[in-house]
Amino acid sequence: MAGNFADRLMAAIEEKNSRVCVGIDPVPERFPPEFQPSDGDWREDAVLTATRTFCWSIIGAVSDKAAAVKFNSAFFERLSPEGTRLLDDLLFTMENVHPDLLAIVDAKRGDIGSTATAYALGLFREYYGYSPGVPHAVTVNPYLGTDGFTPFLEEVRRLDRGVFVLVKTSNPSARELQDLEAEGKPIYVHVAELVNRWGEDMIGDRGYSSVGAVVGATYPEQLRELRQVMPHTPFLVPGFGAQGGGAEDVVGAFDEDGLGAIVNSSRGIIYAYAASPYASRFDASRFDEAAAQAAEDMRVAINEALGL
Amino acid sequence: MAGNFADRLMAAIEEKNSRVCVGIDPVPERFPPEFQPSDGDWREDAVLTATRTFCWSIIGAVSDKAAAVKFNSAFFERLSPEGTRLLDDLLFTMENVHPDLLAIVDAKRGDIGSTATAYALGLFREYYGYSPGVPHAVTVNPYLGTDGFTPFLEEVRRLDRGVFVLVKTSNPSARELQDLEAEGKPIYVHVAELVNRWGEDMIGDRGYSSVGAVVGATYPEQLRELRQVMPHTPFLVPGFGAQGGGAEDVVGAFDEDGLGAIVNSSRGIIYAYAASPYASRFDASRFDEAAAQAAEDMRVAINEALGL
Repeated sequence: MAGNFADRLMAAIEEKNSRVCVGIDPVPERFPPEFQPSDGDWREDAVLTATRTFCWSIIGAVSDKAAAVKFNSAFFERLSPEGTRLLDDLLFTMENVHPDLLAIVDAKRGDIGSTATAYALGLFREYYGYSPGVPHAVTVNPYLGTDGFTPFLEEVRRLDRGVFVLVKTSNPSARELQDLEAEGKPIYVHVAELVNRWGEDMIGDRGYSSVGAVVGATYPEQLRELRQVMPHTPFLVPGFGAQGGGAEDVVGAFDEDGLGAIVNSSRGIIYAYAASPYASRFDASRFDEAAAQAAEDMRVAINEALGL
Repeated sequence: MAGNFADRLMAAIEEKNSRVCVGIDPVPERFPPEFQPSDGDWREDAVLTATRTFCWSIIGAVSDKAAAVKFNSAFFERLSPEGTRLLDDLLFTMENVHPDLLAIVDAKRGDIGSTATAYALGLFREYYGYSPGVPHAVTVNPYLGTDGFTPFLEEVRRLDRGVFVLVKTSNPSARELQDLEAEGKPIYVHVAELVNRWGEDMIGDRGYSSVGAVVGATYPEQLRELRQVMPHTPFLVPGFGAQGGGAEDVVGAFDEDGLGAIVNSSRGIIYAYAASPYASRFDASRFDEAAAQAAEDMRVAINEALGL
């Protein structure tokens, strides 16, 4: 994989005129009826096959509507010990079939020293003896500070990939620690300043660093504030749709050219077939078309909110 | 698995008269020469077999010296997609062969809502269709706050297991965010107060909660401070040995009965065969005996520092 991650991200946004990231959070119980086991009990092989088919259908359906997909590692790890290999396979196939779609693995790891290195190598699929699929970027947790992040960053740099650091998450309780004020500014601004420093020597031709930030759609004012604090940091903005964020809420994540961020929606897209307004237009067997329509509607709504 | 996790932990400490937790951080390059591939290149099957044998030898050697072992998930995830299954197998075999040795999976996960639930189910090996080994406790990251922790805690409670929340980590950069002062106290005290609240209804017969805390050995004064702030919280204390903490440094983690904490050492025990003072006494093929001796020396040193 060649080229600065941030440059690739901006190019993907422009090529597809899309700021949408589709979150792949496979929950087998929410798959359409045709996927459900006849006796109601999932066996390991059945759950893996169903998840593979469901995820691959969604990826294909949204591939020309989205700049990126974000795989939520938890839902793969929870399936079976083979869940990680299933995610590897999806990454590998995506790289070959949809090379213009960026893949993010959302795993929120955070640890120190050689453990941080091991997490980076594992998440980027640099195993012993082989390397299957290539995620373009992953997410990390900053709670352990610089000496936890640096070994991780060394692998990101060596492999020419990207990372998004949790700065301000989208959940209500994010306030409990992240909004505490220390030395005259909230913790999330302290984290933002660390992110600036960590990414300062990885800025690409488009002015953005390969060290990005996770900033929730559910805090529109803080999105604007953090865009100012981190002018060279690409944002991954979760919390759109099911969590309550709308297109107007995410405007502050973008620069004046409408670049610098992607907005994630997971359940609102991949399970659109089962929810309003799509359930009345698509029956469950057309879940992939419902997802494509939901991604397209989100793409248009964000672009309109940005006046694009 | 029956019984409050904290009660089981205190019983394990008393039965073995040991406050030692052995950290299993498998790094194949550091295994003894007999494990190394003849051509210097690890293939997937070879690295898995070597890791399985190395880890199982260490577990057997330390099983009567240690109250617990702590598996560092990163090093298993990094081996191959089969690394998770290897860890499952170790957990399953341990449960049958060494039922009195507690197993902690150190994975430092942290996320919100249904993702937090999925991480809990994955870490506790509650897969679709089957459940292999049983870790007694896992570690989590608190950065996302209460609504990230609550779904995780619900699974901990339902499955009758334990969890250790990162409060003050052992690394030098832990200071950057964890020591910032907000509302008159450092962030790590804010986290400690959350931990108290999260664990208040899971206190067992021995006065400790199944919601524990990770507090580094490298900050002895803060260990004492946090023992006061969290009187009902079992501590998992990393940073002993290779990271610089000694037996005197960890005294503050314990209550007046010498209970309430376990102290982890990873590299200092499992790779003792290659370092002073054990390298001169044990050749590399006796790596397991070196580990047993290092664990025993650590057990005695901590007990002596506690006057036990």
